[in-house]
Amino acid sequence: MSHGMAQDVPPIIRHVRVGSGYDIVVDWGGLGHLADYLDQLHLPRRVFLIADNNLARLYGETVMEQLRQGGYEPLSYIIPAGEASKSQQQLNALYDWLLEQHAERREALIALGGGVIGDLVGFAAATYLRGVPLIQVPTSLLAQVDSAIGGKTGINHPRGKNLIGAFYHPRLVLADPATLLTLPPRERTEGWAEVVKYGIILDAELFTQLEEHAQSLCDFSNPSPALLCQIIARCIALKVAIIEEDERDQGRRAILNYGHTIGHAIENVAGYGEWLHGEAVSLGMVVAAALAQEAGMFAAEEAARQNALLAALGLPTRYRGSIPVAALLDATRLDKKVAGKRIHWIMPRRIGEVVVTPMPDELVERVVTEFFAQVPEIP
Amino acid sequence: MSHGMAQDVPPIIRHVRVGSGYDIVVDWGGLGHLADYLDQLHLPRRVFLIADNNLARLYGETVMEQLRQGGYEPLSYIIPAGEASKSQQQLNALYDWLLEQHAERREALIALGGGVIGDLVGFAAATYLRGVPLIQVPTSLLAQVDSAIGGKTGINHPRGKNLIGAFYHPRLVLADPATLLTLPPRERTEGWAEVVKYGIILDAELFTQLEEHAQSLCDFSNPSPALLCQIIARCIALKVAIIEEDERDQGRRAILNYGHTIGHAIENVAGYGEWLHGEAVSLGMVVAAALAQEAGMFAAEEAARQNALLAALGLPTRYRGSIPVAALLDATRLDKKVAGKRIHWIMPRRIGEVVVTPMPDELVERVVTEFFAQVPEIP
Repeated sequence: MSHGMAQDVPPIIRHVRVGSGYDIVVDWGGLGHLADYLDQLHLPRRVFLIADNNLARLYGETVMEQLRQGGYEPLSYIIPAGEASKSQQQLNALYDWLLEQHAERREALIALGGGVIGDLVGFAAATYLRGVPLIQVPTSLLAQVDSAIGGKTGINHPRGKNLIGAFYHPRLVLADPATLLTLPPRERTEGWAEVVKYGIILDAELFTQLEEHAQSLCDFSNPSPALLCQIIARCIALKVAIIEEDERDQGRRAILNYGHTIGHAIENVAGYGEWLHGEAVSLGMVVAAALAQEAGMFAAEEAARQNALLAALGLPTRYRGSIPVAALLDATRLDKKVAGKRIHWIMPRRIGEVVVTPMPDELVERVVTEFFAQVPEIP
Repeated sequence: MSHGMAQDVPPIIRHVRVGSGYDIVVDWGGLGHLADYLDQLHLPRRVFLIADNNLARLYGETVMEQLRQGGYEPLSYIIPAGEASKSQQQLNALYDWLLEQHAERREALIALGGGVIGDLVGFAAATYLRGVPLIQVPTSLLAQVDSAIGGKTGINHPRGKNLIGAFYHPRLVLADPATLLTLPPRERTEGWAEVVKYGIILDAELFTQLEEHAQSLCDFSNPSPALLCQIIARCIALKVAIIEEDERDQGRRAILNYGHTIGHAIENVAGYGEWLHGEAVSLGMVVAAALAQEAGMFAAEEAARQNALLAALGLPTRYRGSIPVAALLDATRLDKKVAGKRIHWIMPRRIGEVVVTPMPDELVERVVTEFFAQVPEIP
């Protein structure tokens, strides 16, 4: 972490007007001030820090020590990194640990990690003693711009991703973009898929900005803290505006699912962990754009711009290997966006604007089949 | 069910101003009009009726047929009766069934049964696809006056009752007191414990009314539909007023836990199902009153009135058998009302008024030990 840079980039704070309200803070080096942020919430001194083994190795002792210095009594619990931890088994193990510690209903859980940790710990916080305070400290780009924002928590089920979960808002989200520098390359990169998504669905200006800076953003080798903070805060603001309008995902929030119908199906059929979530969403966006283009809703050159930006940011735009297309199409039908048996697709009209609409089954089947047949089957 | 009496007793409707709001209806014979009530909610035609095997035997086919006649496509799922069904295993089985049916996020679950069904199905509705519509049709007195009211859902954990759960409000609660006539005697009777509780904590007039009618209420042999509906609706109104003030159980809602600190501990230590919830709460209220009396907060004659009313309604006021007191005291410390390591007791000052306060450990230990030593230990 480059805490020394903190003075150069002031924290950006977005208040979320949902429930009793809470702040989302983007603060370069902010993890070094976690205890100060907690102080504003007037929590009991005992806090439960839950991290995956990678995060625990990188930051665990520093954060624990900082919390102790700040007058807290932190207890820590480590969860294996990876999507497989978003399971009923891991959730039960976490419940058991909290019960062993006699964790009480006013004591907070701190989720330190990426989307897996945020979703799992968020769901534990939503359901342990019918709800305890939750602090989200997202450390991946994907979690900072998407999964830690908006109160969705949950675990996977053998039949599909995020099928069990709850809407549950944290008391605070603290996003420190300096933590991104320590991520493994693939996990850094996958987050750009959600950032590009915001550009496509809502913000042509953000999209253009990403095109301009794609090279420096892609490899994180010499990132501008101010630019990173600004892009992340922009994505958060876009998502929060939608959530304030449609907290429970009954309407407009659906557009955030652009690229996710096929993305989730890929994750499900290929097996969780085979593709990272952002990689699967990148592929899903390529398929969605192709579908919109085939239907005459989206210009070929705009689809090409989307795919070029995804590739420039290091994301996959073609499927490697083989996948059974019939199973993939089946899996889309179990997606949570299904209503009255019709899949509602998020279809781009132009960069910065999408519509939610059913699409003809034959067209979907043809576009999906063509896309996944781009690579020869493994014999 | 005595649907013929329906015209004599008009439905009593209480609107709950929590979230987007919903109605609680007390309607003698109302189960016969479930489809009409559902029509007001504009739900998809496919509905998922979940009941325990007793309820399914008594009402299952009638309700399914009525729903079909009303234009619905009901699917039914049967759960074994009893507290043991409020388990992670049963919850998972219910998730699996919903997933097999491809249950969608706008389709409703209907919980037909007592507290176990309401809590389990309510938690499933809260967490399946992050929340689907829920209709509570409580069929026990306990569920009608207490567990189906207020949005608490959950399951048990080997370490304690209701340790995993969520706050989740239904779209409708339909309480048909005619269903009480078909309950096994013990399950009828236990519900009076919660009714007496409302009298003690909030409503001296209700308490006096119960004293006057204790004999006819106790055995349900010749109940007055109007009186039963009025008492049940009164309890619901008392609870709703508290919930509207303190939905998330952070303050005043705690008084509803009168008798429950010891009650939960008895259930936990004796093993779920050994004592029905209402029976354990009755014993818990006797202990709580004794504690308040010993502390000089509650008059002996008022405690005696409480205990006499409980007994007159067929509830236990002495412990049968033996129970390890140390384990019982330990179990109270895991109760969800624990805050900052002190147990907050709900202590009566007079009939109709309680306070929430810590109590000296030595006094608690003495009163609890004396109460549970009333009967000789089994050698």
